[in-house]
Amino acid sequence: MAGSIDFYFDFSSPYGYFASTRIDELARKYGRSVNWRPVLLGVVFKATGMAPLPLIPIKGDYSMRDMERTARLHRIPYARPAVFPLPTQGAARAMLWIREAHGAAKAIEFAKAVFRAYFTDGINISEPAAVTQIAAGIGIDAVAVNEGMNSASIKDLLRADVEQAMARGVFGSPFMIIDGEPFWGFDRFDQMEVFLANGRI
Amino acid sequence: MAGSIDFYFDFSSPYGYFASTRIDELARKYGRSVNWRPVLLGVVFKATGMAPLPLIPIKGDYSMRDMERTARLHRIPYARPAVFPLPTQGAARAMLWIREAHGAAKAIEFAKAVFRAYFTDGINISEPAAVTQIAAGIGIDAVAVNEGMNSASIKDLLRADVEQAMARGVFGSPFMIIDGEPFWGFDRFDQMEVFLANGRI
Repeated sequence: MAGSIDFYFDFSSPYGYFASTRIDELARKYGRSVNWRPVLLGVVFKATGMAPLPLIPIKGDYSMRDMERTARLHRIPYARPAVFPLPTQGAARAMLWIREAHGAAKAIEFAKAVFRAYFTDGINISEPAAVTQIAAGIGIDAVAVNEGMNSASIKDLLRADVEQAMARGVFGSPFMIIDGEPFWGFDRFDQMEVFLANGRI
Repeated sequence: MAGSIDFYFDFSSPYGYFASTRIDELARKYGRSVNWRPVLLGVVFKATGMAPLPLIPIKGDYSMRDMERTARLHRIPYARPAVFPLPTQGAARAMLWIREAHGAAKAIEFAKAVFRAYFTDGINISEPAAVTQIAAGIGIDAVAVNEGMNSASIKDLLRADVEQAMARGVFGSPFMIIDGEPFWGFDRFDQMEVFLANGRI
């Protein structure tokens, strides 16, 4: 039985969002499942000395243009959010709690709803009220998710996940690991497919 | 008559080298010519606060792997040089002098020879003797190129070229500008081709 694809992403990463619209389909084609693993780029960037794309001089402007072109070429609905980037630990914690309380499938449904809310409807997903409302929209009790995402055990879980991700070499979003082979970026889906098809690259 | 493709690169950039093996063919397919324009990433990185890939923690290791995978997938001969990255102003100045003295076609022939020497034969192209020897290998007088690349006018020309490139938004290698549309990276050749085919993206 082939191993799962570990799919690391930050909820404020446009390329992570683009990847989220394609990864399940790609995995299914090659008989793989996907572990959706939210991480916090803010923590990761501190370790690598990197900065969020929009804040890098010159490169930031180009990146905004590249995101829009990439969305158009792949026919992915995308509207650049007014607040970008933003903190995502609330959404990430909510996702981890939903996975524990309602299972992986529901957590993935939630993740897709969060990405959509942020990158197509411009909703500020750093606000806890937005996060609980998105959860409610897929049938999860808003009070329960609010309590769960603020629990110490979920906070510890996310912290441990981010640390483990960094220990595995994750430094950006999206970042995929398949059978130990790392792939960074939505623009490496072509190389990922070669690897999935041939077992090597 | 369609405009030329401005192709910016640093001689120590593996992705710039990969691009150099494909760009003329792609341009020809769409009736375009290519302006080969050497730049100095060291100067550019100072302006943007960026660092050479191999020096970035975690990301550096991944990048080495990505370069090798990319070369294999595109069947481009590539051997990671022992000294990497390295200063390239000598090679860039020599190229500018060759263009002035022998024309653009000869300068491109020289650029391809420099890339090959560095990325397939592991030659340290930061050494002036290596640069003049590569020039001699394509029939250019070694003494003349050595004198030319050290002239004040050529040094000024390269400095002005790098400044103009930065003013146009160039922040990495390879970087292509076509009819005002910027493309960064060998992995944007697919988007570049869409633009060349349709006139928009």
